[in-house]
Amino acid sequence: MARTNDFESFLIKNGFIWGPEPEIYGGLAGFYTYGPLGTLLKRNVENTIRNEFKVQDFFEIESPFIAPKEVWEGSGHLLGFVDKVVICKKCKRSFRIDKLAEEKGISVKELLKRIKENKVKCPNCNGALGSKVESFNLMIKTEVGGREAFNRPETATMTYLPFKRYYDFFRKKLPIKVFQIGRAYRNEISPRQNVLRGREFTQAEGQIFITKELEYSERFKSKLKEFKSVKGVFWPAEFQEKAQKEKLMNYQEVSKYTEKPAYVYYLFLTYKLFERLGFPQDKLRIRQHKDDERAHYAVDAWDFEVKTSLGWIECCGVHDRGDYDLKRHSKYSNENLVILDENGNNVHPQILEIAFGVDRPIYCLLDIFYKVETVNGESRAVLKLPKQLTPIKLAVFPLVKKDGIAELANKIYQTLKKAKLEVYYDEVASIGRRYRRVDEKGIPFVITIDYQTKEDQTVTLRDKDSMKQIRIKISDIEKTVNELISGALKFSQINKH
Amino acid sequence: MARTNDFESFLIKNGFIWGPEPEIYGGLAGFYTYGPLGTLLKRNVENTIRNEFKVQDFFEIESPFIAPKEVWEGSGHLLGFVDKVVICKKCKRSFRIDKLAEEKGISVKELLKRIKENKVKCPNCNGALGSKVESFNLMIKTEVGGREAFNRPETATMTYLPFKRYYDFFRKKLPIKVFQIGRAYRNEISPRQNVLRGREFTQAEGQIFITKELEYSERFKSKLKEFKSVKGVFWPAEFQEKAQKEKLMNYQEVSKYTEKPAYVYYLFLTYKLFERLGFPQDKLRIRQHKDDERAHYAVDAWDFEVKTSLGWIECCGVHDRGDYDLKRHSKYSNENLVILDENGNNVHPQILEIAFGVDRPIYCLLDIFYKVETVNGESRAVLKLPKQLTPIKLAVFPLVKKDGIAELANKIYQTLKKAKLEVYYDEVASIGRRYRRVDEKGIPFVITIDYQTKEDQTVTLRDKDSMKQIRIKISDIEKTVNELISGALKFSQINKH
Repeated sequence: MARTNDFESFLIKNGFIWGPEPEIYGGLAGFYTYGPLGTLLKRNVENTIRNEFKVQDFFEIESPFIAPKEVWEGSGHLLGFVDKVVICKKCKRSFRIDKLAEEKGISVKELLKRIKENKVKCPNCNGALGSKVESFNLMIKTEVGGREAFNRPETATMTYLPFKRYYDFFRKKLPIKVFQIGRAYRNEISPRQNVLRGREFTQAEGQIFITKELEYSERFKSKLKEFKSVKGVFWPAEFQEKAQKEKLMNYQEVSKYTEKPAYVYYLFLTYKLFERLGFPQDKLRIRQHKDDERAHYAVDAWDFEVKTSLGWIECCGVHDRGDYDLKRHSKYSNENLVILDENGNNVHPQILEIAFGVDRPIYCLLDIFYKVETVNGESRAVLKLPKQLTPIKLAVFPLVKKDGIAELANKIYQTLKKAKLEVYYDEVASIGRRYRRVDEKGIPFVITIDYQTKEDQTVTLRDKDSMKQIRIKISDIEKTVNELISGALKFSQINKH
Repeated sequence: MARTNDFESFLIKNGFIWGPEPEIYGGLAGFYTYGPLGTLLKRNVENTIRNEFKVQDFFEIESPFIAPKEVWEGSGHLLGFVDKVVICKKCKRSFRIDKLAEEKGISVKELLKRIKENKVKCPNCNGALGSKVESFNLMIKTEVGGREAFNRPETATMTYLPFKRYYDFFRKKLPIKVFQIGRAYRNEISPRQNVLRGREFTQAEGQIFITKELEYSERFKSKLKEFKSVKGVFWPAEFQEKAQKEKLMNYQEVSKYTEKPAYVYYLFLTYKLFERLGFPQDKLRIRQHKDDERAHYAVDAWDFEVKTSLGWIECCGVHDRGDYDLKRHSKYSNENLVILDENGNNVHPQILEIAFGVDRPIYCLLDIFYKVETVNGESRAVLKLPKQLTPIKLAVFPLVKKDGIAELANKIYQTLKKAKLEVYYDEVASIGRRYRRVDEKGIPFVITIDYQTKEDQTVTLRDKDSMKQIRIKISDIEKTVNELISGALKFSQINKH
């Protein structure tokens, strides 16, 4: 399934996402550039996640993107971060057996049987497929200072390694909460669907180092009450096994399917974050991993999935990793990464993880909020992103260029820009064409400077969604627009001048 | 020359910079983790640069960190991004000939002569050095999807490649101004001096695509007047050749040594940015490259150098790259990256570049503003960073934990945190010890909640630098601290309550 060309050209034309890059050199599948509007949107998404983490006392850190082989032996990626593939004997291409089986609508077992019988051929050249299942490691390999190294496949491992530094810095008080926003790499065999499955992507992962006692403590039971009015669509593993549908649940109901109060707390915290990013309740479901799909390190795992025109897309996972990570790294590094628990024992801390992708939520938001409407018999392409996330908040138009109107508009534009409002100036073409441009870019408000402005110091303010207009004073622009963006003011409530 | 152990342990203990990482696996030279305070400081430095670029109508973009070989053939890095080395015949180590010559206090020519005569031995094993000069490429190599590729050695090249996308997006109107903040890689033979010469680092590079006509235009001549009251210490190539010292100059004087008004404009814009980052005038000099040290692509180049305890450190370069880049990439990619100039000719645009490192300014700021003072006969370690850059703005202390004081302090802390003030809570140890902790972390203000707070809703506010204290109302904390940080209010001007 692919989105329409229309959507892809909307992304390109409006400076959201370009690629595969480097385009002028033919492109390398799975690599993209965020253009001017894409980058502003990305910053807004990242900062929304960042602020939410910070309010919850998470501290941000930044670690290297490259680490030597030993780290990935310790983390388990060297052996475990693989796709299972079969290779064409003729063209030598690799094919993931899970994807091939899915395409044929059969089980992996059945696929392998048919390959052996030579009934399934190479999708590329129709040659015979090898029947031996090979492991294809997805890490991007390199060498630094003569040592074998890899571009990190996730931020998580890199965040775990300095645990002893955190333990000192936070003066041995758990839970210790850190997060990291940055690139990670995955040498996908077949990158596809734009940034949804790229080879280079941005993650925003929060890690909570905690003890078992704290996970079950009264403190978290009581903190859960913060979410007493929150409901989301959850889909426990048990339901999936019984072919039962997902269901709207509160934290008490979810607690029946996963037991640690601290874990449920971070599930709901993540849910709130998705709300803050503007995902509607009916586009979001939280699906628990079944026993046979959980990663080797996971005690429990729920994925946040978003409904798009490409189907359900996983955008975030909340994982109970138990004490897997620090136990493994203690063993492989010979550094004992333990803490003194409440009972005076040396134990490896438990880790709870909120593992956000950044690119996927961005793509899903654009997919959900890009609409082509019919207005007065004409087609209007419009991006209806939540106002706080829009790359640009306000456009400034002079009605005409002459008679000092453009100069006045430019002066207002400069003042607003210095006030740190994301603002955009356009004086080219008719007002109608300029409105169409800003609609597509998702700019929620436009002010137009006209002849009346020179007389009474007012401008027209236009609302993208309703297309209504009202005149306001120049001196009120900044305050009015900021209040409209934050939601403190509705367009219909603005006082006329 | 190395900084004292005292400084390195200050960086580690206070969560600024840890490494070489991964420490628990023995460390890989040239890779570091920014800890909680280091990352907050890095965000502040990046956002200061980002905001300055944005006010000047630069748009941010984000491109891949990896690109295939063809790109680096086009950019010239495959051939030109090399260190010249000799290799020890015995231990096989490589040594940079420029560094080796510098250490011996002789010229490279003399060094090579002495190596041939076997008079200079391997600094590592004392074996014989090979006399053949080899080229060691500094790019970090990898392979993606079967194609040879490299981790980018700079952001600049990646910013140039989508030029045609910008040209469309900005509707063919020059100058086009974009910037990118992100990682770059350099496989240093001998990484050293902490993050000053790491193998992985962050750059913040602004690129201006412009025509020659615009570079010399009245528009830039007139814009230069914005800087009429700005003076900095400049060091033209001519002065260096005549062994003449650097000199305080304004833009008119600097214009005698480099001719394009647009280029001088961006030199002074960069100077203002260094001022905004808090670098004192006497720690900063802008040094022009001499003819024999300019990179192959550069028409002119001035480096911003900062005086530290390790000597002068280059933190930023402003480069006139002529039309080198887009001409080369047109040739190598077979895409004609041209514009229509004022005279109707197809030409490759000129590029002016502001090439900031992020790690170096951070390290230099810490070096400059970390002091060990003697106060009342006792030693006090204090970080006197400019207030807007400090990772944390305010610490909240309860005088004691009992009698509801800690609960009240915590409540105030939570309120301030939600108001997006960077705030820090500490209730452990005596007030004196807690003050010492915040002094070292560069936290400019502390409020202490005590018994009087319960009676009259006031707290003490302490200024790190003067160590003076004053009582203010709880309801005034947020406003007062924000005004003290922005500089709108001085501590001595606060009204007593």
